[in-house]
Amino acid sequence: MTINERVDKLRLLMQKNNIDTYIITKFDPHQSEYAPARYDSVKFISGFTGSNATAVITEDKAMLWTDGRYFIQAAKQIQGTYFDLQKENHPNFPDYQTFVRNSTKKGGCATFDGKCMSTLAAKNLAEKLSAKNINCKIDIDLLDEIWEDRPELSNNKIFDLLINYAGKSRSEKLEEIRKIMSGENIDVYVISSLDDIAWLFNLRGNDVPYNTTFASYAIVEQDSAVLFVDSEKISDCVEILRQDNVTVKKYNEIFDYIKNIDKNKFFGFDENRTNYALYTEITSNFRSKNIKEITVDLKACKNKIEIENLKSVNIRDSVYLLRFIKWIKENVGKEKITELDVEKKLIELRSKDKNFLFPSFNTIAAYMPNAAMMHYSATEESHAVIEPKGFLLVDSGGQYLDGTTDVTRTIVLGKIDEQMKRDFTLTLKSNISLARAIFLDGTCGVTLDMLARQPMWNNLMDYKCGTGHGIGFCLGVHEGPQNISLRPVAAPLKEGMIISNEPGVYRENMYGIRTETTILVKFHAESEFGRFLSFETISPCPIDLEAIDVSLLTQDEIKWINAFHEDVFNKLSPFLNEDERYFLRLQTLDI
Amino acid sequence: MTINERVDKLRLLMQKNNIDTYIITKFDPHQSEYAPARYDSVKFISGFTGSNATAVITEDKAMLWTDGRYFIQAAKQIQGTYFDLQKENHPNFPDYQTFVRNSTKKGGCATFDGKCMSTLAAKNLAEKLSAKNINCKIDIDLLDEIWEDRPELSNNKIFDLLINYAGKSRSEKLEEIRKIMSGENIDVYVISSLDDIAWLFNLRGNDVPYNTTFASYAIVEQDSAVLFVDSEKISDCVEILRQDNVTVKKYNEIFDYIKNIDKNKFFGFDENRTNYALYTEITSNFRSKNIKEITVDLKACKNKIEIENLKSVNIRDSVYLLRFIKWIKENVGKEKITELDVEKKLIELRSKDKNFLFPSFNTIAAYMPNAAMMHYSATEESHAVIEPKGFLLVDSGGQYLDGTTDVTRTIVLGKIDEQMKRDFTLTLKSNISLARAIFLDGTCGVTLDMLARQPMWNNLMDYKCGTGHGIGFCLGVHEGPQNISLRPVAAPLKEGMIISNEPGVYRENMYGIRTETTILVKFHAESEFGRFLSFETISPCPIDLEAIDVSLLTQDEIKWINAFHEDVFNKLSPFLNEDERYFLRLQTLDI
Repeated sequence: MTINERVDKLRLLMQKNNIDTYIITKFDPHQSEYAPARYDSVKFISGFTGSNATAVITEDKAMLWTDGRYFIQAAKQIQGTYFDLQKENHPNFPDYQTFVRNSTKKGGCATFDGKCMSTLAAKNLAEKLSAKNINCKIDIDLLDEIWEDRPELSNNKIFDLLINYAGKSRSEKLEEIRKIMSGENIDVYVISSLDDIAWLFNLRGNDVPYNTTFASYAIVEQDSAVLFVDSEKISDCVEILRQDNVTVKKYNEIFDYIKNIDKNKFFGFDENRTNYALYTEITSNFRSKNIKEITVDLKACKNKIEIENLKSVNIRDSVYLLRFIKWIKENVGKEKITELDVEKKLIELRSKDKNFLFPSFNTIAAYMPNAAMMHYSATEESHAVIEPKGFLLVDSGGQYLDGTTDVTRTIVLGKIDEQMKRDFTLTLKSNISLARAIFLDGTCGVTLDMLARQPMWNNLMDYKCGTGHGIGFCLGVHEGPQNISLRPVAAPLKEGMIISNEPGVYRENMYGIRTETTILVKFHAESEFGRFLSFETISPCPIDLEAIDVSLLTQDEIKWINAFHEDVFNKLSPFLNEDERYFLRLQTLDI
Repeated sequence: MTINERVDKLRLLMQKNNIDTYIITKFDPHQSEYAPARYDSVKFISGFTGSNATAVITEDKAMLWTDGRYFIQAAKQIQGTYFDLQKENHPNFPDYQTFVRNSTKKGGCATFDGKCMSTLAAKNLAEKLSAKNINCKIDIDLLDEIWEDRPELSNNKIFDLLINYAGKSRSEKLEEIRKIMSGENIDVYVISSLDDIAWLFNLRGNDVPYNTTFASYAIVEQDSAVLFVDSEKISDCVEILRQDNVTVKKYNEIFDYIKNIDKNKFFGFDENRTNYALYTEITSNFRSKNIKEITVDLKACKNKIEIENLKSVNIRDSVYLLRFIKWIKENVGKEKITELDVEKKLIELRSKDKNFLFPSFNTIAAYMPNAAMMHYSATEESHAVIEPKGFLLVDSGGQYLDGTTDVTRTIVLGKIDEQMKRDFTLTLKSNISLARAIFLDGTCGVTLDMLARQPMWNNLMDYKCGTGHGIGFCLGVHEGPQNISLRPVAAPLKEGMIISNEPGVYRENMYGIRTETTILVKFHAESEFGRFLSFETISPCPIDLEAIDVSLLTQDEIKWINAFHEDVFNKLSPFLNEDERYFLRLQTLDI
């Protein structure tokens, strides 16, 4: 069936159901960053495969929205179909909500699968549409009727993350949540976000590549806790969950389960993380309130054992990265190495670790101009051969039982020019500036972002992305609430949070540079003016000395980099053979 | 009538009206920063006079909430009354919403004057109370029944702010708003905030000391504009408004006027700025949407003529401040000068300006330990005599036809010790660090705040307030949306915005230091990475050289301060006599 045939079929069904406008998102019912293939609905209807996409179909129009990262790719992929590309955040294009409003008749009907849109997004849409009295129908999934061979959800087994990794038992975690529920007068607390559920129940799975989460919902009351998840994949854990008074029910049973709860009970849930179908189910039957997900903050501040584990896993991961750097520096130009070989080599090196599960995201191995594309990933069809000159940017990480890693190094493979050195050094200055920060307890990432931007901005340069994101514990490589970026988000940095520190310089058609370390928020000092925090860089992988222009660094910066490299040498050398240790010594010499 | 008699009377009325809990705010119907005396309701019922206060009365309890600035004062003022002090943001005290929830019976009734609470606050309260099914009654003002001699609203005349000051005509402004209304599909746009109304109609008044606003509402449609304001005070302007097709109606008529609007029309208004009574009136009869106040952004970016005026008024205002500095330095110790004399002297000096109206806020003249109290103001009963030693902090400003000023200088009056010099110099470093910023167009103040904090935080110091606030044009000395502080507010800095730059050091029982300049956001440069902005310091008043420890400054900082003082000298000297010019030369010598 071609794309256009799919659209034709959908339009027939829309007509039959009196639907004027059909909106298709690419979200799963949990607004996961990476949705299972079952929810690749925009790809199914339009052929477009980018990670940000919304499609809208009307009687005579088919529109696809995406952002600047994907304009070229989307135009190519929808060529020859009914679809027109609509650019997000572009003055010449309406946002999809405005398009829906303008192209649906007064009093008409716009439809989307309520499970696949967040409450916040659905409410915003509804507000836009109310001006024209347009109704939203959300309990119908027309795609399902035309999608033959729609992928099923994965059946990968779920396992118990032992306490020596997790550091806190599920009963302790449940107790903490119940205490907060009491304080908030909440009888029934509904959790929809998959990493929060995995964290709360100390369980991990693998529904989607790179991810340790599993499709599920959870409902916590004072005297019960129910996990909604497909019974086959949870079978190994049912008994241990029962011991902690956690009941397992089928994934789709949550809607019926909620219907049967005592109508006097008061619900709490996070509108930002709950899909609109579930929201509607709750709010049309119960009194409730919107509460920031309780688990998010608890999960973000790693406990002592998690922190020990994370320090350990980052040392081992840096060892594998170092071996990779040694291998590529010694072999580039001697044998044919492509960008695709990088991920293979890294998996080979990391796989020797007994705690390694799989990569924590699709490795970015980008040579020279490819690295200027921030979300580049090499494919079988299109990838570069790595040559003994210039920069190779490698952004990779692993899911381990004792933590998640995410590190980027830009590696010098031969001759580089002065501008490359200058850009690399400015990136390093940005990284150091943030790494050395001393800040008041309660400061948000949006304030600290200035430290990383300043060396760039003073030179009229910038990178078009955040400086840092939270990292989970054997969980999401992107984890909230903390974030270091220009977006003014109210998420104070707290002791025990783990964040990436990844400024960069991206020069189109030339090269890309990123130096990404992992930093831990820790107590620094207390004075009459308050409690101060600072960072500890816990990913001890060397930064390429060959690309540093020392004349651009201050004395304090030089001191910092020398101390960092001394620490790298001390931490990694116990794991290395003599040859590797010698290599590391050269990589960590004082500048 | 004593405080307790007032509470007793209120309780009787509550009983009669079946009200369990009565909430009293100190807001006017426009959430003005400074409310007219008519709305000093918390003061009337409790005796407490602080600027942040909420009172809650139940059958057997009377509670007063305020924040840390006022704990001591509040405790003193409510001593001997029924009232108990409740500390805001303190772990041992509930917020008032929680108290209302906990102390009102299930299904009970909590009441407040809907005009005196913002929609946002009322909605938050209602959400808290819904868990216990408590109803909010908002159309009753019991205070009015027991408040004999309740102050009337002021009758001060409103005047037309001429185009050579305002820079843009009211018809141009109305046209801009109507264009935005069209884009947003809004038929009826309701404005409640007083500074926005004053700006939009190029009118100024003086309902409340220091303020140029006047109690009013406005409703804009495509073919009409109505200003609701008491007819007596607007009489001088009715004719010129009519020429711009603006109709004047009585202040309280807005509710009836709305009732008579065509029910098919779609309303837009800002929930954050609209009182709950008005919100309820609109939303229960019309379709509507919440839209960030359109006028706020238009007003914040000053036009070319406003900027020219602001530069000019800041030069003249700095001349008056310089004369003040000269006078106090030359006369302290020779005659008795108290903190109270400072405001008198400043008004005397500023009054010579033909455009001066009145001070833009209550002058803070605080000598030594008094200056450590951030919101100190000297009173007839309690004020210090200024001695020829230590620091005098003077924070003052004026309302002029051609702009609003707000400047703080910390003046050396004699001997100061090393710590005082160090703190003064760190404050200066903070001010310079922000003043020199180069930043990407679209950066929010919360990011730039880091620049001012860094010199403090690196020394484990901090000031417990924001670094900067927007300043109006012959309007509020605090004007949004821009703000430089640790609060993550999404308000990008834009060209033409005016902000204060006021870091400080406050040492309890010792002294307080603040150096407050006024900065203008302007275009800096454009590169392949984006458009960059920077600041221009437009308040050319010298910074006291006697308190600077040059050894703590970098070469760049020394260069900045020398260039600043050169600029100060060049701008002020044309206005000075020989004696004054000589004094200024000494105040602006190179360091």
